[in-house]
Amino acid sequence: MTVEEAAKLLSRVRQRRPLVHNITNYVAMDISANVLLAIGASPAMVHAEAEVEAFTEIASSLVINIGTLSRDWLASMKLAARVARDRKIPWVLDPVAAGVTHFRTTAAMELLELQPSVIRGNASEILALAGIRDARQKGVDSCDESAMAIDSAKALARTSGSIIAMTGAIDFVTDGEAVWAIDSGHPLMATVTATGCGASALVGAFLAIKDSPVKAATAALAAFGAAGRLAGQRTRAPGSFRVTLIDELALLTPASLGKNCQIRAATS
Amino acid sequence: MTVEEAAKLLSRVRQRRPLVHNITNYVAMDISANVLLAIGASPAMVHAEAEVEAFTEIASSLVINIGTLSRDWLASMKLAARVARDRKIPWVLDPVAAGVTHFRTTAAMELLELQPSVIRGNASEILALAGIRDARQKGVDSCDESAMAIDSAKALARTSGSIIAMTGAIDFVTDGEAVWAIDSGHPLMATVTATGCGASALVGAFLAIKDSPVKAATAALAAFGAAGRLAGQRTRAPGSFRVTLIDELALLTPASLGKNCQIRAATS
Amino acid sequence: MTVEEAAKLLSRVRQRRPLVHNITNYVAMDISANVLLAIGASPAMVHAEAEVEAFTEIASSLVINIGTLSRDWLASMKLAARVARDRKIPWVLDPVAAGVTHFRTTAAMELLELQPSVIRGNASEILALAGIRDARQKGVDSCDESAMAIDSAKALARTSGSIIAMTGAIDFVTDGEAVWAIDSGHPLMATVTATGCGASALVGAFLAIKDSPVKAATAALAAFGAAGRLAGQRTRAPGSFRVTLIDELALLTPASLGKNCQIRAATS
Repeated sequence: MTVEEAAKLLSRVRQRRPLVHNITNYVAMDISANVLLAIGASPAMVHAEAEVEAFTEIASSLVINIGTLSRDWLASMKLAARVARDRKIPWVLDPVAAGVTHFRTTAAMELLELQPSVIRGNASEILALAGIRDARQKGVDSCDESAMAIDSAKALARTSGSIIAMTGAIDFVTDGEAVWAIDSGHPLMATVTATGCGASALVGAFLAIKDSPVKAATAALAAFGAAGRLAGQRTRAPGSFRVTLIDELALLTPASLGKNCQIRAATS
Repeated sequence: MTVEEAAKLLSRVRQRRPLVHNITNYVAMDISANVLLAIGASPAMVHAEAEVEAFTEIASSLVINIGTLSRDWLASMKLAARVARDRKIPWVLDPVAAGVTHFRTTAAMELLELQPSVIRGNASEILALAGIRDARQKGVDSCDESAMAIDSAKALARTSGSIIAMTGAIDFVTDGEAVWAIDSGHPLMATVTATGCGASALVGAFLAIKDSPVKAATAALAAFGAAGRLAGQRTRAPGSFRVTLIDELALLTPASLGKNCQIRAATS
Repeated sequence: MTVEEAAKLLSRVRQRRPLVHNITNYVAMDISANVLLAIGASPAMVHAEAEVEAFTEIASSLVINIGTLSRDWLASMKLAARVARDRKIPWVLDPVAAGVTHFRTTAAMELLELQPSVIRGNASEILALAGIRDARQKGVDSCDESAMAIDSAKALARTSGSIIAMTGAIDFVTDGEAVWAIDSGHPLMATVTATGCGASALVGAFLAIKDSPVKAATAALAAFGAAGRLAGQRTRAPGSFRVTLIDELALLTPASLGKNCQIRAATS
């Protein structure tokens, strides 16, 4: 996986304008929809049990994010994920704060069984899903350095059959054997709410192209990171950073993506 | 209907500061509330079955938007719409993605029977409500050029008794006989989530003045389009466009409205 | 209470990065999370009955806001508030639009019995909770000058045992005996949705330090007002004001807080 391949996938997302179905948390809906529009996708937020299956069938990909989870929404998530699995519609799981409460960890595990194409989380969430520990996190922010958790991510990829996209100061994507490291982004990304959720939405847009899920996840994180790096060069505080992040994502070209991130094979 | 009349209605909204009751989707709540504040109205978001009727009674107008619909919310929407109809409180229906799923189309039809003053939608949604087709849309964005759908809008206005406000590159408002075209706005408006929902909220603010619903819908779309055109001249990407759209709406004067949109009688 | 003490508490919030648990309304979630991140806290939005108690136990403080209330959410709010009371976790109640409907007033009263550390509201809401009147408000904005309501705030503080933080052009904090006035902020704050809710979230962050609730509430409103004053000097309309408010909150230092607000003992 190279930045050239990531740039090529960006072009394909912009050409195809895929319909991305999101069942995500209340906090992340706005940034998810705007991130998807900025990358050229067509976002939809639909969660009612009465229509969630019918909607998943017409979408090009599905994003499930358990941020502000409740029993009703979990039921809808499972219905949608089942349709996605059965119809081979690629889907991404964002297991927000898995490991923090029993309800949340169990929900993430149940969704994991429905075979997400990609799991996008921080190191704490990946560790929780890997069963390495269910130590309580400090909220939804990761306490662990991503690099420390690479082995757990590889193990989780092997047992789940999903690609693991673990984000942090450096992002890692693994299929259980190879590991790619994406070096990009900016510290201000962690100061804006729901940027991780936005990254998951972007993975959904790239999955819709139906190249390999590894490439989709890597390219999505590369694009998000490049836009973040550019936004970080132009702003110095989180309010204007968030606005500029969306601007830079919309203005991102294959060329500027290539100049603002590095992708390399990582050894763990 | 002239831009001078639209400008006059803008002044009246700013003077009266009407209380606008919104039962809208999760994605649109933030932009709807901020659009209403920017135009000088007082927004409220209230949806619980336990209080939705009592709240509608004290509002000057009601906005119902089915974006992130569920059965519970639909029940509340019907309760509120019934109060609005019975008490002659003007209300606007935004039938987001009608035609895309059976649940959604049926819900929009049921709300239609409660006699909205104005229906604000894109061409696909208006076609779906007119029964012309229930072809599945590509998400919530319109696939049809608005101009092509004018005849359907007129037919829907006649059968429903509602004013139809159909937005697109050019906006059209019809009472079933006459058609007004509003030429304004900017392509960046389509790159920000929930701008259509924001337009519906603004129609609610203008309806509260209780001039004719045709004039209210036309003036609201003229004001939103003028602000959009001004914002488009000052920005080049969706993040900053959205921020500037709210700024321009707040700064919009009767004079600047007049200079930044055209209203004309359209022939279909 | 002096600006120096407020500045010192700001430093402590930034050092401790407390986990603040929010059960807030849909409109306010985004700004609440971003306000908390900007002040250096770690926000979490969790509301499901299945996990709300477990989550409250690990949080440093709790914020309950009844903006888009429904029966389900009220049940969760009570569960969380009960845990907070029993475990001496400080919590703040934002009784949005109390007094406007029976459902809403009753809900606020029921939550009041669970002994919030601080009640943050506008003058209309405080008057409603004090039982002075249940006159219907014009939506969620305050109709009363805060100064007029100081006596009611003092009475409510005495009967409830909670600190009352009543915001307006000038903010007032009282323990039932002494009253502090915070002079800061900017008129543009009232033109952005959910800024009051953001202030309540900030009170939550300062309560987490577990100094006295009076000092926490006063320091939080001083910090928010100072950031608002600075943002108001740099912008002229609500879209850009909101962005800059978050920037200024993130950039606020003990020194700039001290220069941009006044705290004084008030006589009523």
